[in-house]
Amino acid sequence: MPVKALVFDTFGTVVNWRDSVIHELRDLGRRKGLDADWVAMADAWRAGYAPGMDTVRQGKRPWTSVDVLHRERLDVLLDQFQVQGLTEAEKDHLNRVWHRLDPWPDSVAGLRRLKSKYIISTFSNGSVPCLVNMAKHGGLPWDCVFSSDIVQHYKPDAEMYLGVARFLDLPTSQVMVVAAHNNDLRHARSHGLRTGYIHRPTEYGPNQSKDLRAEEDWDRIAKDIGDFASQMGV
Amino acid sequence: MPVKALVFDTFGTVVNWRDSVIHELRDLGRRKGLDADWVAMADAWRAGYAPGMDTVRQGKRPWTSVDVLHRERLDVLLDQFQVQGLTEAEKDHLNRVWHRLDPWPDSVAGLRRLKSKYIISTFSNGSVPCLVNMAKHGGLPWDCVFSSDIVQHYKPDAEMYLGVARFLDLPTSQVMVVAAHNNDLRHARSHGLRTGYIHRPTEYGPNQSKDLRAEEDWDRIAKDIGDFASQMGV
Repeated sequence: MPVKALVFDTFGTVVNWRDSVIHELRDLGRRKGLDADWVAMADAWRAGYAPGMDTVRQGKRPWTSVDVLHRERLDVLLDQFQVQGLTEAEKDHLNRVWHRLDPWPDSVAGLRRLKSKYIISTFSNGSVPCLVNMAKHGGLPWDCVFSSDIVQHYKPDAEMYLGVARFLDLPTSQVMVVAAHNNDLRHARSHGLRTGYIHRPTEYGPNQSKDLRAEEDWDRIAKDIGDFASQMGV
Repeated sequence: MPVKALVFDTFGTVVNWRDSVIHELRDLGRRKGLDADWVAMADAWRAGYAPGMDTVRQGKRPWTSVDVLHRERLDVLLDQFQVQGLTEAEKDHLNRVWHRLDPWPDSVAGLRRLKSKYIISTFSNGSVPCLVNMAKHGGLPWDCVFSSDIVQHYKPDAEMYLGVARFLDLPTSQVMVVAAHNNDLRHARSHGLRTGYIHRPTEYGPNQSKDLRAEEDWDRIAKDIGDFASQMGV
């Protein structure tokens, strides 16, 4: 059965969240005359992502979108990093930096090529508005947006992997999850979806310690989305 | 509160379903050496749409996508119009004519202009794959696809109108439903959404008897999507 849809993990695989967040934090610091370790703050913000989702995944709180989780974490970090004097509007704008992440240099051109032959969709724990705004910000040419919001489950819950195939009304064998994260692909494969690995060795910065290489024989292993497009025949 | 998202009824408002279906039926007839009143068959197919959805809306059957409803109706009509000798693959392909509807001539250019300032989405009883394939077929540049599949309710159920605002995480007052159908807009307004009317006086052919004019003082009343884009300041 030929692959008909390519569904992309977004944070890290398609967009460079770390440099985007560091850049906005530094800009804010300059404008407001504030100083802090912005790199550490960006990393700490991201580090709160999985634990925040886990409280939802484990049923400790009702469905809560990543926008809310990001904001809760931001409020803690502003205090911890002693970033003071921001208005509510400024905090809200800063929280939406996750809606303004820049694509990796190869993403837009690669996705455009893939769109000519395949359905291309997000496959992300980001919220629908986050993914829509991010696409408008960076020019990501998605055919549709599939988000954890739609199934009210976060990856790696099975509902996400099975849900994206049901959403597209395709058998799992015709849907390929494309991600820079071996764990995402392990779950995809366990549910019968196809797998495409994109090499993003600096997603977490120069000292990244995981996902430095494909750890299994994924269906496609590519050095970036352009290389992946070539392997997919477009 | 400024409008941030424009959500479009699709069948009739953005795409010309009637001429598209007639055209494919005629083509099929020529290729297969079959003769029938293709115009009447197209109209009868569409006429089965609302009653099919009503059985779902009234709880007489579980959630059933429009693709299935279309196919059930097609099987009845093939018999009724004595169109014989089609293989299962040909019937399946014919049923997907609803995924290959052509845009009205003004739709793509108008949507492109609107996309530069607003989030633009489908707001349709069509299935997700129908809307995704239709967008690829006609070049409709949606930011995202909102379908009855996502809330498992058909318009005019309240879940669709409230659901699209929740999907986009916007207050209803920042979402405008754009439709060629007064009834859709009446429901939208009753739930607090904004309203934009597009004039499509030949959607149902030369003898169309309803939706020949805006029947209320909708927020915008436009002669086509290009005119609507101008009124929306893009």
